[in-house]
Amino acid sequence: MNWKRSERLVDMTNYLLNNPRKIIPLTYFVDKYGAAKSSISEDISIIKETFNQQGIGILKTLAGASGGVIYSVNVRSEDIQSSIHTLCEWIEKPDRILPGGYLYMADIIGNPHLMDEVGKILASKYIDKDIDVVMTVATKGITLAYATARYLNVPVVIVRRDSKITEGSTVSINYVSGSTKKIQSMVLARKSLKEGSKVLIVDDFMKAGGTVNGMISLLEEFRAELAGIAVLIEADYNERLINEYTSIIKLTHVDEKEKKIVVSEGNILCKEV
Amino acid sequence: MNWKRSERLVDMTNYLLNNPRKIIPLTYFVDKYGAAKSSISEDISIIKETFNQQGIGILKTLAGASGGVIYSVNVRSEDIQSSIHTLCEWIEKPDRILPGGYLYMADIIGNPHLMDEVGKILASKYIDKDIDVVMTVATKGITLAYATARYLNVPVVIVRRDSKITEGSTVSINYVSGSTKKIQSMVLARKSLKEGSKVLIVDDFMKAGGTVNGMISLLEEFRAELAGIAVLIEADYNERLINEYTSIIKLTHVDEKEKKIVVSEGNILCKEV
Repeated sequence: MNWKRSERLVDMTNYLLNNPRKIIPLTYFVDKYGAAKSSISEDISIIKETFNQQGIGILKTLAGASGGVIYSVNVRSEDIQSSIHTLCEWIEKPDRILPGGYLYMADIIGNPHLMDEVGKILASKYIDKDIDVVMTVATKGITLAYATARYLNVPVVIVRRDSKITEGSTVSINYVSGSTKKIQSMVLARKSLKEGSKVLIVDDFMKAGGTVNGMISLLEEFRAELAGIAVLIEADYNERLINEYTSIIKLTHVDEKEKKIVVSEGNILCKEV
Repeated sequence: MNWKRSERLVDMTNYLLNNPRKIIPLTYFVDKYGAAKSSISEDISIIKETFNQQGIGILKTLAGASGGVIYSVNVRSEDIQSSIHTLCEWIEKPDRILPGGYLYMADIIGNPHLMDEVGKILASKYIDKDIDVVMTVATKGITLAYATARYLNVPVVIVRRDSKITEGSTVSINYVSGSTKKIQSMVLARKSLKEGSKVLIVDDFMKAGGTVNGMISLLEEFRAELAGIAVLIEADYNERLINEYTSIIKLTHVDEKEKKIVVSEGNILCKEV
């Protein structure tokens, strides 16, 4: 194939988007397209500029012997705002209220487009924190954790409530649920987390923060490092066990009788991580 | 912003890739870029041609009043082969063998790049089947189901082993595990699946197929329609309960003593769905 610039731009854009946080040597493109290094550099400038202007992400070019390029996601405040707005509309639907004031959330955590948007936002927030691993607890945090990990180009590690034979040897801890005060346990396969890993904890929902606290205890067992905590929804709660976290949405009030759910934006836009 | 063609191509490629299986009216691009419809049509031809030649996917242009374009993923046989090859190398690592001949798989199902590739392959295989929902069972199938659903642009529905208060009213079934003959149960929230939905079942591992069979029973309870079954790994098993399925990898033999795992490609390349 004889590559035109226009075709190279389409193909390179696809390749970069599919390989976030990966250093791609310029020679990769030079070889693939049979083009001069100067042409590839110009292509990259065009993509860089467009990614920047449209809030798609940041292309960083690396100097050195061969030179390279790395794409990182970067979501603009106005786009975060707009995603939060969409999410609030979804969450406020009154038929979501279950007996006891619980919220049915399976449609939201099962929506790949929404989770992809939120994952992009979280990845963008923690992009400079050298995250090695995204950790979550089964079941409901998995889709968001995966979406976030995909943009950070790191593995996702799934903590379970129960031990399974297909996990091999495991580390188990007990923790106290912050709101119900019940003792629960959490299990993680010994192999799944290396000592010294920098871990971003991602979950769908946080009330008192007992579950997140449990995950922090697990990190200590593995001698891994907590690099951040991010949740989709934080519920209003007085005695929170966790101080430092990022939230996308804040759930202020659920009125079961009046069938009303009140949400607002979380701290993501005002919080430095 | 005054858009040049090169910039439009980069931005459109990003938009299309982020919106698989969604009809985008040409007017969307005309308005966004302040360009003539004829220019946008030319842009689309370039992207279409490149997507096609590079096996990125298929752009279908729709005629009619306003006209539109829809991007669908389409993975070429040689790229499927190469993904299978990579996966086989991952799976064959002998330190994966656990006592009892089980395989540790958390690193594979937790690897977003691998799951994204496999999800793309599965979506590509079922792209013309009008799938409404991807269904899986907690916990280990979730990342692959999500990755597949993302490319099909449909929700993912997660069946659980136990009922949770945050699911609302649920439907529960009992099923017999095909290999251990134990009776187990499965639960799905009443709200999560509409009658008549066409469902693609995705799971990480299939031995006898008892779990998949359980999900099929659930579909019957919901009067939903089975549109396909796809698994990452099928283990060699004589009395399989399921006949029609797609598999990426076939696990032929695990030798615990010799620390040897034998895998080959599944039926994905020889099977019409």
